[in-house]
Amino acid sequence: MWVVELDEAGVRTHTPIGQGSGDVAWFGRDTTGAIDRLVLLRDVVGPVLAEAVRSHGPIDVMSLAAQAVAMGDDVHVRTQASTNLLLRSLLPALVEVEHSRRVEAATFLSGNYLLFLSLAMAAARALTTWAGQVEGSSIVTGMARNGTEFATWLAGPDPTWHMAPAPPVKRALYQPGRSEADAAPDIGDSAVLELVGLGGACAAGSPAVAQMVGGTMAHAAELTEELDSVTVGSSSRFTIPVWGMRGSPVAVDVRRVVERGITPSVTTGILHNSDGSGQVGAGVAQAPIEPFIAALLELDATLGA
Amino acid sequence: MWVVELDEAGVRTHTPIGQGSGDVAWFGRDTTGAIDRLVLLRDVVGPVLAEAVRSHGPIDVMSLAAQAVAMGDDVHVRTQASTNLLLRSLLPALVEVEHSRRVEAATFLSGNYLLFLSLAMAAARALTTWAGQVEGSSIVTGMARNGTEFATWLAGPDPTWHMAPAPPVKRALYQPGRSEADAAPDIGDSAVLELVGLGGACAAGSPAVAQMVGGTMAHAAELTEELDSVTVGSSSRFTIPVWGMRGSPVAVDVRRVVERGITPSVTTGILHNSDGSGQVGAGVAQAPIEPFIAALLELDATLGA
Repeated sequence: MWVVELDEAGVRTHTPIGQGSGDVAWFGRDTTGAIDRLVLLRDVVGPVLAEAVRSHGPIDVMSLAAQAVAMGDDVHVRTQASTNLLLRSLLPALVEVEHSRRVEAATFLSGNYLLFLSLAMAAARALTTWAGQVEGSSIVTGMARNGTEFATWLAGPDPTWHMAPAPPVKRALYQPGRSEADAAPDIGDSAVLELVGLGGACAAGSPAVAQMVGGTMAHAAELTEELDSVTVGSSSRFTIPVWGMRGSPVAVDVRRVVERGITPSVTTGILHNSDGSGQVGAGVAQAPIEPFIAALLELDATLGA
Repeated sequence: MWVVELDEAGVRTHTPIGQGSGDVAWFGRDTTGAIDRLVLLRDVVGPVLAEAVRSHGPIDVMSLAAQAVAMGDDVHVRTQASTNLLLRSLLPALVEVEHSRRVEAATFLSGNYLLFLSLAMAAARALTTWAGQVEGSSIVTGMARNGTEFATWLAGPDPTWHMAPAPPVKRALYQPGRSEADAAPDIGDSAVLELVGLGGACAAGSPAVAQMVGGTMAHAAELTEELDSVTVGSSSRFTIPVWGMRGSPVAVDVRRVVERGITPSVTTGILHNSDGSGQVGAGVAQAPIEPFIAALLELDATLGA
């Protein structure tokens, strides 16, 4: 697994090495191929990456993400540029690795354009954990979905998870032969990205997101504009060239969400709803508003007490 | 060196492996460092790349360029995305290399964000050579500058080089302490990129070019629009997402250039004009119109004969 450290906050987060696309366990597959992939990760890719990262030294995850945002990644549904930057950085260390199966590892890494995703998620989780230390704040520090329920939470050592049914994933592109009828509701831990200025927050700069939400960059920019209307900050490093060189919106304020009735949009993959066949498409899920209302009411009750 | 083959046309082109930035011979440096770099390329990088490319098989250069255009490269002054894509493709083969100095080669490759440039130039030269087989055509098949003179030519087995003084490089960003007073006139073989839909043709999609020409993407798009007004085709693969998902302009028509009085703009590096200190900046050079007028007059004389 990856380990991300945020020394300023005394925070350490963890995430599995991304399994990539296709026949993989993280998409709900339990096939021989999916198990083989996990074994490859355990026996080959993990050890090779460990050797390379030890030799390379710590990687500044969000610095790579920032460069990738200017290269069309939203760093959620699209992590092609960030993955390439990561592999380019690690190249000398990977070439230096002495593991007997290093070529197998390199072949997997070279073909896994989703590699950066879980790493970005762990880095985002480190940041929201840091923000979570500011008790009494109205900034949203958690969003997660498990295909059945959606949860959001605010700061604090043991925050209440405010929940509602997971939303459908709309504005979707499906794989050939797949449709809404196959789609599970919104699922995954990756919505943490939208809380730190990535994912939907960077939609304006991502041609890949544009393909999902209507085909033009203007359609994609609507997602960023929408989130911008309920955040209180702009990222100082996730600069979107085609959005007037502005920083992506960060710090979702639960007060603004409730006042404006606008919840974060999450750019995300879609899994099959029942047959375990894995990913069937990608699209945009709009968080339900009820948990945000509940969170605000609880915050106001706490602050008033 | 790289060898590029275009089988359809029976064309083979060649180019040196890019030396990268800084203290390097291709920028006019003759220092110990520049010589050391050449020796490293000859003894280490070249052999390692040769072994890797043989193991990988042929690389589709323009396919990588096309992906990079959607990631902010103009594939002329900026080749970061294309270089990363190339290295990602070659990763397994590089890890497999047995050369004893492979880590030195990987370190050089990992730090050379200009690596793709000379490769793209050779691929562009293959395409313009192919176009050069269509005798009597009004499509411009050559532009080159040597810091003193600019030349352009049309199709044919032994075309006349129509020349004029090399233009200044304007709209420039200079390195700290450098200014117009240090700048050599336009220099280099790279203007061939502008003839195949790259470089200035892709400015609209390149934040790096935007930084040079005024700071906004709209400024950069003006370069693409301008070239579009004197070309007769659109690239089917160099699609620019932020330019309405349109293909970049290709096939500069000497008739349109002369009729409209608009010559191609070339995004390019700037070398020092006298002291051999190497690159001092980057900017945009506008080709002089006189050679295009001369080329058109010669073409009409030939067609009329």
